[in-house]
Amino acid sequence: MSLVLRHDTGAVRSLTLNDPDRLNALSDDMLAALLAECDALETAREIRVVTLGGAGRAFCAGHDLREMQAARQAPDDGRAAFADLFDRCATVMQRLRALPQPVIARVHGVAAAAGCQLVATCDLAVAAEEARFGVNGVNIGLFCSTPMVALSRNVPAKHAFEMLVTGGFADATRAREIGLVNRVVPAAELESASAELADTVAGKLGSAVRIGKSAFYRQGEMSLADAYDYTREVMVENMMNDGTNEGIAAFLEKRDPKWSQ
Amino acid sequence: MSLVLRHDTGAVRSLTLNDPDRLNALSDDMLAALLAECDALETAREIRVVTLGGAGRAFCAGHDLREMQAARQAPDDGRAAFADLFDRCATVMQRLRALPQPVIARVHGVAAAAGCQLVATCDLAVAAEEARFGVNGVNIGLFCSTPMVALSRNVPAKHAFEMLVTGGFADATRAREIGLVNRVVPAAELESASAELADTVAGKLGSAVRIGKSAFYRQGEMSLADAYDYTREVMVENMMNDGTNEGIAAFLEKRDPKWSQ
Amino acid sequence: MSLVLRHDTGAVRSLTLNDPDRLNALSDDMLAALLAECDALETAREIRVVTLGGAGRAFCAGHDLREMQAARQAPDDGRAAFADLFDRCATVMQRLRALPQPVIARVHGVAAAAGCQLVATCDLAVAAEEARFGVNGVNIGLFCSTPMVALSRNVPAKHAFEMLVTGGFADATRAREIGLVNRVVPAAELESASAELADTVAGKLGSAVRIGKSAFYRQGEMSLADAYDYTREVMVENMMNDGTNEGIAAFLEKRDPKWSQ
Repeated sequence: MSLVLRHDTGAVRSLTLNDPDRLNALSDDMLAALLAECDALETAREIRVVTLGGAGRAFCAGHDLREMQAARQAPDDGRAAFADLFDRCATVMQRLRALPQPVIARVHGVAAAAGCQLVATCDLAVAAEEARFGVNGVNIGLFCSTPMVALSRNVPAKHAFEMLVTGGFADATRAREIGLVNRVVPAAELESASAELADTVAGKLGSAVRIGKSAFYRQGEMSLADAYDYTREVMVENMMNDGTNEGIAAFLEKRDPKWSQ
Repeated sequence: MSLVLRHDTGAVRSLTLNDPDRLNALSDDMLAALLAECDALETAREIRVVTLGGAGRAFCAGHDLREMQAARQAPDDGRAAFADLFDRCATVMQRLRALPQPVIARVHGVAAAAGCQLVATCDLAVAAEEARFGVNGVNIGLFCSTPMVALSRNVPAKHAFEMLVTGGFADATRAREIGLVNRVVPAAELESASAELADTVAGKLGSAVRIGKSAFYRQGEMSLADAYDYTREVMVENMMNDGTNEGIAAFLEKRDPKWSQ
Repeated sequence: MSLVLRHDTGAVRSLTLNDPDRLNALSDDMLAALLAECDALETAREIRVVTLGGAGRAFCAGHDLREMQAARQAPDDGRAAFADLFDRCATVMQRLRALPQPVIARVHGVAAAAGCQLVATCDLAVAAEEARFGVNGVNIGLFCSTPMVALSRNVPAKHAFEMLVTGGFADATRAREIGLVNRVVPAAELESASAELADTVAGKLGSAVRIGKSAFYRQGEMSLADAYDYTREVMVENMMNDGTNEGIAAFLEKRDPKWSQ
């Protein structure tokens, strides 16, 4: 059984973390499976949107603590293994961010530690009403330092700091208030609401969305002046696209665009 | 008829985009008119606050798509014209930001694409209850890459991304929740509420507000340490101002300051 | 009588600004007293959390305006004294930020100008329902340029700008909405709610919290890629900690960790 289930519906790929007995922990195998999915998505031009959920009771409970403790048996007390683990995990997070497709987290149950980082890393997130979000490593003496990289780029400073040092959980409503998720729906509607959001995005011109996702994060790390210099060029390239020509023409002629995507 | 109406009341200049038939689109002529207003404001020391609204049904619907499509007739398929257009538009946005006066958007109807960018670019914004905000270029295959520069510096990442890839509209209440506007009022009170906010700011010591607006954006792009090094100097210069001496003295003597501005 | 009262309860140090007749203004003496507390805290490894409140009617009303006006008598009209004052004030703010312990503001009454900066500078803040927050120097002709460094790193741009140029106050509910405080409680519960939050944080592994606070602000000023490179190393060091080993082991064995701290 694969650790990440894949299901395509039209241009939307639905990925599901599938290790319910370990609450979909980001074990070595799970990270490898996610990385393989990133590899596949980078060349899957027919896929325009990705959703990411979890099987069983939880979205994702974070790292696999048993695996990590086992690594302490090494002569270096696990130092090399931990460096390698956090390197692979950070790579997965940055690969998701760099995908040509927007990624929508569909979150139920618990999203904890690196699981919460996964939500913060996704471009968009839909949550079930009962979902809970925590960067709670501090409760076991392991401050969520890598998860906070993603969290603190989603959530105001004091709210992020509170979650990090108290180890407490935010419910879905609070998560939306502070910017961690986009939409909150009854649990029974999580799949349909996520699919609806994915379909909306998949209905846009694929090349425009690809251009936009990449530019969104690049310009966000620039000064205002540099960001305008850069995005002006992005807009010009976007305008030279045949699909964009058709999209604008269709709008002016009050008809639907004919996009082959 | 001018494309930008100008009306001064005391130290407040009210500008109104005046091309209602094109929903106040940022055409070549409109951008030129806005640039001319920026030129005028830079030396208009008697003006201490600016408000910016739109005539007709909408605040501003974004770029002028007919003009853009016409530019495709050029031998280079419009590339040079598009580069020039986005350059002028980004210049207007950055000139508004660099003005010595705070600029308050007074928004009714639709603020779409570059029109939403204009709202995000203004220092403050008051919205009518029925106003709607969208960076919806993606709907016609033109991702709002330059508008997102301004939007993503106002609004949390996931909310900005959602608006950009879904092309959906946020209503005024939502716009306030996510930081895009400061105040929401009934449509009938938009002018009076904007004027009241403008008057409040205009009643302050003009030199202090000028110092502050400039420093606000400069320090925002610095590290914490650099920002403190810079603003400490700004505070010293502010203290050496005669009006500031008078303002503090008046406060300590429990009387109103005598400011010539 | 000391200008800053100190009271330790277990691992929590409660500091109280104690100059109620001057609304706990950040006078030369008060800044010196706060700096001395920072010195003491840096080596007080038995203290794991700090709370900071004010005696009397207000949390802190900002700078000591009488002292500042008196400095104008100098041959340079006070320029050197002002430079020195803002330097010492910015130093105190950055020292609080750099402390090994999280600092929780417990705010009642007014937090104005540099007093509001103090709230924004603290890692967390609990506010009484009647507390009011303003960066209102603009009302006396002195734009709150240094306070805005802290404020604008807590609060969305347009909301911060509004507070700065209008000089108006935000109530506690609004302060929480915009990210300036974490929790709002009835005035009678301010001390107990602050103590409860402090106890929660003090119950965590001290070394993990120290690591986390420092990393939180450092990574926040980095690009995403640099932030991950840096925090990966932080996580590895955290894992090599004996207390962390015990914390994870205890979690896996479903028992409480035995932490000597």
